[in-house]
Amino acid sequence: MLSTQPYKGTRDFYPQDLRIRNYMFNVWRKCCLKFGYEEYDGPLLEPFELFAAKTGEEIINEQLYFFEDKGGRKVAIRPEMTPTVSRMAAQKILNQSPTPLKWFSIANFYRYEKPQKGRLREFFQLNADIFGEEGVWADLDLLLLNKAIMEAFGAKDTMYEVRLNNRFLINYLFEQVVGVSGEKTKDLAKALDKRSKLSEADFGKVLEKLELDATQIKNVGKIAKFTIADVKRLKDLPEGANDLVNLLELAENAGLKNVVYDPLIVRGFDYYDGNVFEQFDLTPGNNRSMFGGGRYNGLISLFIKKNVPAVGFAPGDVTMLDFLESWKLLPAFESETQILVTLFPENSECYIKAMEAAQELRQWINVETYLYPNEDLTKQIKYADRKGIPYVLILGPEELKNGTITLKSLKTGEQEEFKSLIDLWKKTFQK
Amino acid sequence: MLSTQPYKGTRDFYPQDLRIRNYMFNVWRKCCLKFGYEEYDGPLLEPFELFAAKTGEEIINEQLYFFEDKGGRKVAIRPEMTPTVSRMAAQKILNQSPTPLKWFSIANFYRYEKPQKGRLREFFQLNADIFGEEGVWADLDLLLLNKAIMEAFGAKDTMYEVRLNNRFLINYLFEQVVGVSGEKTKDLAKALDKRSKLSEADFGKVLEKLELDATQIKNVGKIAKFTIADVKRLKDLPEGANDLVNLLELAENAGLKNVVYDPLIVRGFDYYDGNVFEQFDLTPGNNRSMFGGGRYNGLISLFIKKNVPAVGFAPGDVTMLDFLESWKLLPAFESETQILVTLFPENSECYIKAMEAAQELRQWINVETYLYPNEDLTKQIKYADRKGIPYVLILGPEELKNGTITLKSLKTGEQEEFKSLIDLWKKTFQK
Repeated sequence: MLSTQPYKGTRDFYPQDLRIRNYMFNVWRKCCLKFGYEEYDGPLLEPFELFAAKTGEEIINEQLYFFEDKGGRKVAIRPEMTPTVSRMAAQKILNQSPTPLKWFSIANFYRYEKPQKGRLREFFQLNADIFGEEGVWADLDLLLLNKAIMEAFGAKDTMYEVRLNNRFLINYLFEQVVGVSGEKTKDLAKALDKRSKLSEADFGKVLEKLELDATQIKNVGKIAKFTIADVKRLKDLPEGANDLVNLLELAENAGLKNVVYDPLIVRGFDYYDGNVFEQFDLTPGNNRSMFGGGRYNGLISLFIKKNVPAVGFAPGDVTMLDFLESWKLLPAFESETQILVTLFPENSECYIKAMEAAQELRQWINVETYLYPNEDLTKQIKYADRKGIPYVLILGPEELKNGTITLKSLKTGEQEEFKSLIDLWKKTFQK
Repeated sequence: MLSTQPYKGTRDFYPQDLRIRNYMFNVWRKCCLKFGYEEYDGPLLEPFELFAAKTGEEIINEQLYFFEDKGGRKVAIRPEMTPTVSRMAAQKILNQSPTPLKWFSIANFYRYEKPQKGRLREFFQLNADIFGEEGVWADLDLLLLNKAIMEAFGAKDTMYEVRLNNRFLINYLFEQVVGVSGEKTKDLAKALDKRSKLSEADFGKVLEKLELDATQIKNVGKIAKFTIADVKRLKDLPEGANDLVNLLELAENAGLKNVVYDPLIVRGFDYYDGNVFEQFDLTPGNNRSMFGGGRYNGLISLFIKKNVPAVGFAPGDVTMLDFLESWKLLPAFESETQILVTLFPENSECYIKAMEAAQELRQWINVETYLYPNEDLTKQIKYADRKGIPYVLILGPEELKNGTITLKSLKTGEQEEFKSLIDLWKKTFQK
């Protein structure tokens, strides 16, 4: 016998699960359209080189699914969307499309992870990106979109926080305050990225491994506690770093109360090169990272000889669902089928009339017909009840004689007679 | 430089392409819901064994994408949905779910094909399936759903044809009329499957290879021209074969005019074991197969010790799009963004008011704000025009002074003044 279980780290979406997933996807899609983003999609398989170039060592070495196809091409299942969407945007820009491009997609990704809370091997993400605008208004547009999404899910400002940092600022602080530059920058950034998961002592050990001296370690501690006021006091900030200050100001003016500077935000992808941000779920006792985003202005130059600024973010379905569940924000989902039309024995006049009634009602609502007309009525009604279908329609010999239609509510048990299907629909279902 | 092209046989769905894909998916989804089918989804990766068991040699040996994961598990990218949905249905039936299950999914699949018209390496399919009902009313339900889908696309009965056959009937005819049974059955079935693509002479050669004698070849020719009247005249038809006659009768009574018996329909998958059908595009001069379906009652017994009848069909996006294009049924798609709100220089009162107006209008319609507030108005309007956004909103110093809002139509060039955003929405956009 073959197993009925899915491959490790992936999920079967049964109808009750898919309703939740569709609900999330619909909120994402609707909000993106509200802000003028256009939907695209790319292939699931991409040349290996696309990710090898910039995705970051951890993903490539440990998490990427790749193999040779039958023609000897090395291909990978996408672990993220940014390289694909950059490739597609590069092609559009080559074709002289009007910019900025404001694009979104909702797609699945694979990473070879040890399955755990918040992490699976197959997951879905919304990716929203803007290509061709270097100003922080693009970053703001994404933050406003993010707020609209969270509001559409019913989330309040106090339930989550968007923490910002900036790669130029990070590098500047490493150089000027800690005295670290070049190769070591990446290692120190990685260490900071893990700061919140480590004790003071363990964090110290990580820094020692980087061969930092006591003063340097003290200074790392200092920048780990930096505030935006500290940042503003810095002299000769590099221009890119000012984007952080400017974005925070715009966000504040736009009423985004939960957007803050956080010196510990780094983001793992190698391609980020300006503002970066990460959203945290503030569930008490279970404060955790939900997703991130940022600037990757340099990425498109892998494809075309042109500077194309880019910024994006990517909420995932697994962490979003955890968030909605922790805060009890998920609505109740009812059957999408409104009526089960019960049937009378095959080829009888009742059978034919009932099949016609189902067809007519489908102009307005979702209607299932029972699949075995020779079954007894009680069993048909029981089936509807077990499936959560709220109404059954009965068109039997009695109804045929009287020229009526019976609709029985399975919630209340009450029956009502109607003279026509349109009356039935208007009275019971029309909103 | 990395290439901007997608992997061979896959497609980049730019926004204009994805609008078409979403249109097709929405028609599929809406029609399935109308008939009471519930949506599910399964993982993209499955254990190799799932497909090795029953999918059919051609797909496994030549077309399946499979590899070992980092834990040494042999996994495959799904080339079709039937094994996955059967695995999931088996699990549900183990859990005592009420049957029949009426399920659908819209998902992507991979097959290593030589890319050509109608065939790509990555494609999408609607899969609609019924588990747990052996009667032909289940087959009829799918045919009615199929008709509803085709009607929703604007297709008439004369544009396509559903051709039915039955695996029990095929085997019976091979045995009784041609004198072929056992191992040779599959080979002869494959030969018949290709009949319509071959000349009389080439078809003869294929049959000779099967070592059929002259009489047998003549008899193959005879069954290739069988009609439903011929079938009805047969004595001692096996019970399963009667399902074909019964389904044709039900279909006729239900007004399905383009559902016919075709002795040449076989279907490639090994798991089919009752009625099978294939839909053909009747475009003059380019009559071609669109998709198929059928009974696979035996498949679930790979997973559980229980007989669970099953039937399904699976239209694909590539052949469906070819169909819609040949018959010119695709609607025109307009921008999903209704308004571009133009902006005035940063931090000005006009900028703030315009950003607020965008936010308010998003209650009702999709609104993009221009991303660089210091740009001149003409350029902002030109951007909207190039993107196909039909209106621009202007809230400049003049408007601010008069307490008005200007809406300019880019189709007619006309401008209109409004006193409030709700008036603007009601007059211009409310349906």
